[in-house]
Amino acid sequence: MDKTDKTGGVPVPTVADVAAAAGVSTATVSRCLNSPGVVSEKTLKKVLEAVDRLGYAPNFSARALASNRTNMIGAIIPTMENAIFARGLQAFQEELQKNGRTLLVASSSYRSDLEEEQIRALTARGADALLLIGYHRDSRLYEFLEKRRIPYVVAWAYDPAKPHLSVGFNNRAAMRQLADEVIGKGHRKLACISADTAENDRARERVNGIRDAMEAAGLDPASLDIIETSYAIDAGDAAFRALVGAKTPPTAVICGNDVLAVGALRAALALGMNVPEDVSITGFDNIELAGLAPVPLTTVHVPHRRMGQFAAQALLAALGGTPPPHSTELPAELCLRATLARAPAG
Amino acid sequence: MDKTDKTGGVPVPTVADVAAAAGVSTATVSRCLNSPGVVSEKTLKKVLEAVDRLGYAPNFSARALASNRTNMIGAIIPTMENAIFARGLQAFQEELQKNGRTLLVASSSYRSDLEEEQIRALTARGADALLLIGYHRDSRLYEFLEKRRIPYVVAWAYDPAKPHLSVGFNNRAAMRQLADEVIGKGHRKLACISADTAENDRARERVNGIRDAMEAAGLDPASLDIIETSYAIDAGDAAFRALVGAKTPPTAVICGNDVLAVGALRAALALGMNVPEDVSITGFDNIELAGLAPVPLTTVHVPHRRMGQFAAQALLAALGGTPPPHSTELPAELCLRATLARAPAG
Repeated sequence: MDKTDKTGGVPVPTVADVAAAAGVSTATVSRCLNSPGVVSEKTLKKVLEAVDRLGYAPNFSARALASNRTNMIGAIIPTMENAIFARGLQAFQEELQKNGRTLLVASSSYRSDLEEEQIRALTARGADALLLIGYHRDSRLYEFLEKRRIPYVVAWAYDPAKPHLSVGFNNRAAMRQLADEVIGKGHRKLACISADTAENDRARERVNGIRDAMEAAGLDPASLDIIETSYAIDAGDAAFRALVGAKTPPTAVICGNDVLAVGALRAALALGMNVPEDVSITGFDNIELAGLAPVPLTTVHVPHRRMGQFAAQALLAALGGTPPPHSTELPAELCLRATLARAPAG
Repeated sequence: MDKTDKTGGVPVPTVADVAAAAGVSTATVSRCLNSPGVVSEKTLKKVLEAVDRLGYAPNFSARALASNRTNMIGAIIPTMENAIFARGLQAFQEELQKNGRTLLVASSSYRSDLEEEQIRALTARGADALLLIGYHRDSRLYEFLEKRRIPYVVAWAYDPAKPHLSVGFNNRAAMRQLADEVIGKGHRKLACISADTAENDRARERVNGIRDAMEAAGLDPASLDIIETSYAIDAGDAAFRALVGAKTPPTAVICGNDVLAVGALRAALALGMNVPEDVSITGFDNIELAGLAPVPLTTVHVPHRRMGQFAAQALLAALGGTPPPHSTELPAELCLRATLARAPAG
């Protein structure tokens, strides 16, 4: 095999070079790299020394032909920039690590076109299985994964009506529970700061949960003021200022996540409002920031770590472990702190 | 090519199947997938439709043989679980994206053995280039990357004495500047809460920066109380309680990053101490949390976004762009907020 490296000219070492340097067969080199447990320690040492000395990296073409598994799991998350996915992903990785898998993560910036590109890139790089966030994506992509027999798990969402392997929570029911609590405190004029609902099914379901609660309480769901924006503190701040500038400002602002709520809270305090006396503000996720905010946030606790761990277990099961994989609904619970109080007397 | 898929039995579509379905040559299919710009729109559409219909994914063995570039860049960061790396990485990804590259990220949990595994895994998966955090790693790994001619950039650190392409800041000088400020406020009994300094060169250099400032001010660097712990709020909280429980408690606690400082601040407030009247606490990084803490943190601002962007540009240049790649030192600046004040009269 006479292959040149990426920059041209200098030959990269091949498995045959390693075999010659270690005085073993190429099959033995291959066993050392792929199933070190079945090789004697002496042989393993000799081969790994040759691998290091020559700077040999298992050629991924050869690897792919030799083995049907890469032990690499891919995850595509909407963003790395805030804590929403970080904790769950860390637990996901720890569970995979314990089982000898490497995690590679791509971030789609909440864009469907980039997510599609990344699903194809991770598949092309040999991912054995994928973690995806939420259900919303073109059916072509699900078909693609099924045709390729790449197991995947949908996390951060759970909908029993969906056919996909899922580990998550019911976003709609969780937000409904929080909105019931808000309405129970006498709030009638509600507003919502949400992420884009067109391509983000978790955001959409949370808004639906608020509407469910309004309907059940005899309020007109159409009276809900909604601002859709990006998940950023500054965006929450700006949206809050727009909402309270309205003719009939809301007495409670329900935010699609904690990051938006922290921004809304910052704006409220900067405007000289008392929270929760003048206005109630709620979050969603219970990230660390929620408990540390200037007025600790009332929010919904999402069991991120358990979700990541269970998602890893589901994928490992889908890759042939026992028992077979199953979807899991985790509870998301109200977390009552200090930003929700009775509506001010109108 | 009669290849069966991972789960055995069902044949996966090959490039020949796509070519037959689209009525073009396999070379045309390959051009559509690798250089879509040189193919007519009509042909591209026909081929991509066949790709979708059949569920074809470019076989990564075939791809690797057909092209020396995968357009995939790898990054290995110590943790995804807090915001330290998130913002810089997001900017890194945006810059790569603009240039047609996909980013795959692995997280090493601050463990050298896992980092090594991930460098090898990303290389085996065909990464064109790598982003690494800090300089501390076995020289074998640098040799491996150099032998393989895989460009890499070291980020989050800058040391002109090191031979590696780097985009970062001088951790030692930055912390020295902050410690000068602390000592200038009359603090003589200092303590430090740091990450593990044995394997984390950024942490080690920050501690050295404090010692430099002490020495310059005529204080004994050996009198610095140091607790090494993990980068977590709870860890900062516990370390602070241990430090103030000492016989001669510090009047200023310099923390290795903002996460630790927020934990220390939480502990101080829980213990009924006034910050900064009773004790000064400083952070490092200037993550969002720093400005939102109950007492806004005095810290060092690290230009994370610019660092990520410049690191991407350096790697793209190393991959053959012009001008050739060069190392860049970015300024890290003092960010004075409310947690540092004059030492209490002793």
